[in-house]
Amino acid sequence: MHEKIRLGIAGYGNISKGCIAAIKENPDMELVAVFTRRDPDKIKVPETVAADKMENILEYKDKIDVLLLCLGSATDLPEMGPQLAKNFCTVDSYDNHGKMPAYLADMQAASAAAKKTVVVGTGWDPGLFSLSRLSMEAVLPKGKNYTFWGKGVSQGHSDAVRRVEGVKKGIQYTIPIDRTLEDVRSGATDNFSKRQMHQRQCFVVAEEGADLDRIEEEIKNMPDYFEPYNTQVIFIDEETFDTVHNKMPHGGFVIRSGKTAGKHTAVAEFSLRLQSNPEFTAGVMVAYARAAKRLHEQKKYGAATVFDIPPVMFSQKTREELIEELL
Amino acid sequence: MHEKIRLGIAGYGNISKGCIAAIKENPDMELVAVFTRRDPDKIKVPETVAADKMENILEYKDKIDVLLLCLGSATDLPEMGPQLAKNFCTVDSYDNHGKMPAYLADMQAASAAAKKTVVVGTGWDPGLFSLSRLSMEAVLPKGKNYTFWGKGVSQGHSDAVRRVEGVKKGIQYTIPIDRTLEDVRSGATDNFSKRQMHQRQCFVVAEEGADLDRIEEEIKNMPDYFEPYNTQVIFIDEETFDTVHNKMPHGGFVIRSGKTAGKHTAVAEFSLRLQSNPEFTAGVMVAYARAAKRLHEQKKYGAATVFDIPPVMFSQKTREELIEELL
Repeated sequence: MHEKIRLGIAGYGNISKGCIAAIKENPDMELVAVFTRRDPDKIKVPETVAADKMENILEYKDKIDVLLLCLGSATDLPEMGPQLAKNFCTVDSYDNHGKMPAYLADMQAASAAAKKTVVVGTGWDPGLFSLSRLSMEAVLPKGKNYTFWGKGVSQGHSDAVRRVEGVKKGIQYTIPIDRTLEDVRSGATDNFSKRQMHQRQCFVVAEEGADLDRIEEEIKNMPDYFEPYNTQVIFIDEETFDTVHNKMPHGGFVIRSGKTAGKHTAVAEFSLRLQSNPEFTAGVMVAYARAAKRLHEQKKYGAATVFDIPPVMFSQKTREELIEELL
Repeated sequence: MHEKIRLGIAGYGNISKGCIAAIKENPDMELVAVFTRRDPDKIKVPETVAADKMENILEYKDKIDVLLLCLGSATDLPEMGPQLAKNFCTVDSYDNHGKMPAYLADMQAASAAAKKTVVVGTGWDPGLFSLSRLSMEAVLPKGKNYTFWGKGVSQGHSDAVRRVEGVKKGIQYTIPIDRTLEDVRSGATDNFSKRQMHQRQCFVVAEEGADLDRIEEEIKNMPDYFEPYNTQVIFIDEETFDTVHNKMPHGGFVIRSGKTAGKHTAVAEFSLRLQSNPEFTAGVMVAYARAAKRLHEQKKYGAATVFDIPPVMFSQKTREELIEELL
């Protein structure tokens, strides 16, 4: 029996709660402590788990093998990630695709100097979807990758809806366009526009007396977020909002459509359908924490992405078991 | 510009022909020679590529970086694989799941002693499907894996049909049962029987005067192959057989259905729809040849499976490109 992997969680939001649940489902892991910048008394964990302030985190340096960074990608991770990587092996779900190389370089510098191992950009996109894009492209070079998201709640787009004046509550669902999905599945390799691939559906509770037409127009014409798409704005009452739209489902599809030998259609597809996006994301992070620990034991310091890690490293099974049961 | 990866192909069947086509689609590779135990004059390759007898293969030892073993799993690979692994880095698509550990051990012993790197069991199942099973299980520990094959031609079952007396030509299609597929996709985690997961459809050209009822009964009652399934036997004329059933389509689905935090359904699915099974299998082998070369350059000798190889190693792109474009 190996010693359990001792995990810490920095941050206490939805993904953090998902990590607390996911760690329980991995018998080779134990949760040591959860850290928050707010009130640690509000953290719900079993008695054996510490709930502490973020400022005390360094006191746990020798008690934690891998720290799960459940922090936002916009400002928290770029600032706190490299700081924490000087003292802990970490796993994060940094998801700003455009700024990934810069963040990765910062995490690499911090962790390599401190002889720590960090895994950057796990979760499902980036993460499992990235792995699918890579492997599909590698085995089917003549073809094209498509990524569809949804049906599910986009946090960024929901935030954008809520910033519109007169919106009391709002949520946005990203919905892939079935017809385009079917085209791609049938072997199409067109350049589809944003509008052809996704539509957006917003449920809004308006402030009393607000101008609904103005709200609708303002949402639909918001550049980047909604303007390039067909967007539906549906006004509902607050009770309906609170009972029907309090979930965080998501999912999506990575599809590569191509040809073998220049003539035979080949279509590869990876999809997820998740009732809880943050809980599934947490499950991926926790699996990669196992890889972080193993890489660190092998003295492989620095920042790794999902592309760098042999799959055997994030499984709970031994190599022998994997070969016998899953190969 | 790196030097091209120099490939050889041992064997000249359908997968071998697929490899010849796939190598052309990878600009970082070149085909050096194809080897056959039959008549090398029948090998169709460009003038720059050698077509030679298998017995002369050692003469190419220093001209080939990786040898693609396009040989049968039943008897050829267990015998010839370890012999060839003493002299070449190799990639194969060995697909006898039950005997995988034994074959892997033989390949490990031969290649490690000779300081060669071999990749065993690539293709799509084992191969890409194995990778899906591993990663889905790792990130969603509470759940169940299902593998469905088809609709497609099973070589083993077609051979079994052809062995029945009075069968002149025969082909067998494995067909996943839609209803069970839908159940699994909706989150079911039942223990489905073989009959619930797949049905089998056989197209048969009978010898003149053969007893069709007897042929049908004999096929349907064949233990292991057909008895555990609902099997349909359809007699057709030879012309129809030759024009309609001369393709090798295949595909399948790996689905993991489970729960996050004990309550929210999560379903992950990887699927392939292939007009040409051997060509796609060849595409996977060729991608792993790139990994074999790179592992060998890093002096990582011995036998690797798809579980052991960091995804970055089988891509045609650099790590930087992958992070920027696909992560």
